[in-house]
Amino acid sequence: MSTIVFDTYGKTRVRLTYVRRLGSRHEVQELTVDVFMEGEFKEAFTKADNSIVLPTDTMKNTVYALARKNGVNSIEEFARDLARHFLAGVSHLNKVLLEIKEVPWNRIGDSAAAFVQGGLERRTTSFTATRSSEVFRSGIQDLQILKTTDSAFTGFFKDQYTTLAETTDRLLGTVMQSDWLYTSTDVDFNKTHAGIRSLLLTTFAAHKSLSVQQTLYDMAEAVLKQFSNIAEIHLVMPNKHCLLVDLSKFGMDNPNQIFYPIDEPSGYIEAKVAR
Amino acid sequence: MSTIVFDTYGKTRVRLTYVRRLGSRHEVQELTVDVFMEGEFKEAFTKADNSIVLPTDTMKNTVYALARKNGVNSIEEFARDLARHFLAGVSHLNKVLLEIKEVPWNRIGDSAAAFVQGGLERRTTSFTATRSSEVFRSGIQDLQILKTTDSAFTGFFKDQYTTLAETTDRLLGTVMQSDWLYTSTDVDFNKTHAGIRSLLLTTFAAHKSLSVQQTLYDMAEAVLKQFSNIAEIHLVMPNKHCLLVDLSKFGMDNPNQIFYPIDEPSGYIEAKVAR
Amino acid sequence: MSTIVFDTYGKTRVRLTYVRRLGSRHEVQELTVDVFMEGEFKEAFTKADNSIVLPTDTMKNTVYALARKNGVNSIEEFARDLARHFLAGVSHLNKVLLEIKEVPWNRIGDSAAAFVQGGLERRTTSFTATRSSEVFRSGIQDLQILKTTDSAFTGFFKDQYTTLAETTDRLLGTVMQSDWLYTSTDVDFNKTHAGIRSLLLTTFAAHKSLSVQQTLYDMAEAVLKQFSNIAEIHLVMPNKHCLLVDLSKFGMDNPNQIFYPIDEPSGYIEAKVAR
Amino acid sequence: MSTIVFDTYGKTRVRLTYVRRLGSRHEVQELTVDVFMEGEFKEAFTKADNSIVLPTDTMKNTVYALARKNGVNSIEEFARDLARHFLAGVSHLNKVLLEIKEVPWNRIGDSAAAFVQGGLERRTTSFTATRSSEVFRSGIQDLQILKTTDSAFTGFFKDQYTTLAETTDRLLGTVMQSDWLYTSTDVDFNKTHAGIRSLLLTTFAAHKSLSVQQTLYDMAEAVLKQFSNIAEIHLVMPNKHCLLVDLSKFGMDNPNQIFYPIDEPSGYIEAKVAR
Repeated sequence: MSTIVFDTYGKTRVRLTYVRRLGSRHEVQELTVDVFMEGEFKEAFTKADNSIVLPTDTMKNTVYALARKNGVNSIEEFARDLARHFLAGVSHLNKVLLEIKEVPWNRIGDSAAAFVQGGLERRTTSFTATRSSEVFRSGIQDLQILKTTDSAFTGFFKDQYTTLAETTDRLLGTVMQSDWLYTSTDVDFNKTHAGIRSLLLTTFAAHKSLSVQQTLYDMAEAVLKQFSNIAEIHLVMPNKHCLLVDLSKFGMDNPNQIFYPIDEPSGYIEAKVAR
Repeated sequence: MSTIVFDTYGKTRVRLTYVRRLGSRHEVQELTVDVFMEGEFKEAFTKADNSIVLPTDTMKNTVYALARKNGVNSIEEFARDLARHFLAGVSHLNKVLLEIKEVPWNRIGDSAAAFVQGGLERRTTSFTATRSSEVFRSGIQDLQILKTTDSAFTGFFKDQYTTLAETTDRLLGTVMQSDWLYTSTDVDFNKTHAGIRSLLLTTFAAHKSLSVQQTLYDMAEAVLKQFSNIAEIHLVMPNKHCLLVDLSKFGMDNPNQIFYPIDEPSGYIEAKVAR
Repeated sequence: MSTIVFDTYGKTRVRLTYVRRLGSRHEVQELTVDVFMEGEFKEAFTKADNSIVLPTDTMKNTVYALARKNGVNSIEEFARDLARHFLAGVSHLNKVLLEIKEVPWNRIGDSAAAFVQGGLERRTTSFTATRSSEVFRSGIQDLQILKTTDSAFTGFFKDQYTTLAETTDRLLGTVMQSDWLYTSTDVDFNKTHAGIRSLLLTTFAAHKSLSVQQTLYDMAEAVLKQFSNIAEIHLVMPNKHCLLVDLSKFGMDNPNQIFYPIDEPSGYIEAKVAR
Repeated sequence: MSTIVFDTYGKTRVRLTYVRRLGSRHEVQELTVDVFMEGEFKEAFTKADNSIVLPTDTMKNTVYALARKNGVNSIEEFARDLARHFLAGVSHLNKVLLEIKEVPWNRIGDSAAAFVQGGLERRTTSFTATRSSEVFRSGIQDLQILKTTDSAFTGFFKDQYTTLAETTDRLLGTVMQSDWLYTSTDVDFNKTHAGIRSLLLTTFAAHKSLSVQQTLYDMAEAVLKQFSNIAEIHLVMPNKHCLLVDLSKFGMDNPNQIFYPIDEPSGYIEAKVAR
């Protein structure tokens, strides 16, 4: 006899462009929303009991209806609105997870209502609500950063397959993934996101790196020191290699000038740092 | 003071094409290997102690060296070879995770050494080894399947935002993600993978679906019934919608003939089913 | 004063899934349709004269309506239906281009109505119609093929930056792009597509390659010899490199067994061959 | 007997990261270079004569060697350096095409040597050189822009399949592709690129759009008026639809506030405008 040991269902990639009209001046937010529900849904699987299944199409409709009803101030507050709505309306729902990503759109100059997209970086939140708890993990995805100085890697462990040369001056590039756990749900989310983003960037820029591990830890510590409403920060910083081209076969030197970036393989460095 | 509560590091997307030469007849396997290490690595983060850091470049080298030394029979056995090698060589390593994906290459007709790629589907394994345990989770990623009959969705839960029409005849398409837990490490992995794949396909094809949930469960049960060395199977089956086009505005009917597929949003259905 | 020297407009990426119901046995076709129109449309640009602009939304509707009205036998015939419809309905339209791609779906075993997607390869047609001419270019996109024997590259031109070693035994992989010009519009398109695809594959498999250029030409010649209704065939065969790993630093040989594939850079080889 | 009516070959996706060190202050450029050669290469195809084939691997080496030798000031000058080198070294080469794309990297604050990637937009050049001519087409790829006011589409042509509603207030979003033909090869390319980019953005922002066609033309005219060294500008502006959500079924209005963006299908608008 088979048993369901975990189940969830929901709707993913619900896209919303929200335009806020402040007189002739507009603001725009582009979101992608995922909804995941857990609760007393097992008999939908085992007995095809659809009477307990809120259609995922309804979840999509709800995203649009609540955006109209409540507006979208921050992705965190919008996630909370949606989660509370679902918990209120579906009595056999125990836990709901909202994951929202925001695409950056930047104003073109000082125009009132025209925008240029800001790239691959995404502001994110992952909000988990049950009947008795609400937890926000917010973050930044795919922040692509590079430093061309102050990066070394020496003195490492070696075995019979180690061929890597030690270096005191390399390029250090990464596509940073980050999320942090709020200790409170009463936060100025927009301001905190902007502050953490800025601090991560400036810490990365200023750091004298002896390894990606050390740089990651330094960035995490800087955030924990400055933002008291963050309990924990999680960073993933793949080492996106940019390799020095060997020009010696053409009788040329290469004083850290000519590199070729590769997409794969990558080093992978991950840590969660808590207060 | 900050504390590291979790850390890992490794190498991702190490690509290997392995050619087995059986006289003039060749076989080819294309793999992507990820290595993740956990152990006594914290001081690499907090004190920049690189003497405990095996370079990720060495992990890449090891993939190639062990492929040459031991060959690649199945991705599971290759993962085990790599894991054991790392545990033997790095005494402060507590746990190593190998994730390997295999790209399908199919022989062109009966040619001895020419192949055509089989598409987006990937055979996968995720092998976790510690000093005292070895666990295989193998699976199939991105198996894109569609049935054009025997799919209904009626009698569902409704709230104020429910507008979905009930249907007794819709298209049911998904991009299946699956993995299963082996109860043993002494398995004919190649044969079992092929058998589970075939059973998932034929069960999907034959099923009279009242919901994606029910279809997913039926597929999981079929595997658990037939394969006694599987303790648990995990399936994710997003509902990749294929919507009926409304032709009534042109005075035409549409007897389930003309649809438009959309990539987003998708329904999302996930369960782990155990024996 | 500015002048428009070229203009076109249309609709791209109109997706259609067409289900043919032959009793309980179904067939399925998944198409992506692009429509491009040229004609007397300049004043839409220069004077914002929308009265000459058939909305691109209407082009999308037309794809669905004509699929219902006429069915979809081959992508070529469907392209012709659409083109003739637009030329008949829009008197200031001089030329219309239909580009259609078909996603391969293969039946699961002998099931009546269940399918598994066949991968990245696409069957294509590009149909150009004016008031006085109709031209079909059909083809195959993204056919990923690999041979592990009978591929050499020696005796090449060298300059001061040439470091490539000569080789008499390498892997030869490509992602073939192909299209051919029909001499007639009265063709069994489905059968011809299948025949050319098969011939390209078997010629590639059997060829003793001295260069990608030679292999490409051999494949083109084979098609022109066997298919008399083809005036010209166009092949693009990037050399998707699969590089031999140097294991000598570990004291190992590598008898053409351990390779690593790279996505970039690629060699690029292209030719049009005519009768 | 078969004849080659067109052939080319080369190397694509050669990636280069170039670091310019001005004391402790660094600048960084990330390029992707494609090289395509045309000339007396037919016998490489028809007779496997490799003695006329400069290996594509050599083209890759040359990119790196010339970057070291000459530096990279603009992508246009680097393209010219490469083209002239190949024409000088390969006497049977008649025409060489260099296509270079530049990834935007922006300085992090006022840091000396740290950068954040600027997104999907690419600066491009396509440089064609023969023994007697040199032509630059430079441009911008994938500039994603959106305006939330001053966009209408009314009074359009209608047929039996037209269902689109007229609108005087819609969102207008596009992923602009642009390239322009320089009348001279003696240009401050970096400054001109920045100037055209800025002018395209501000013209788009300020335009009162009656159709995408009109907006495109207005943008093209603005460039031709202000930049006398541009003979022709080519713009492709797909209409990336952002659709108003119908909330009436929930008893709500939607005063142009709640939209959902779709990736497909798209309108497609293209024109070349010349002086």
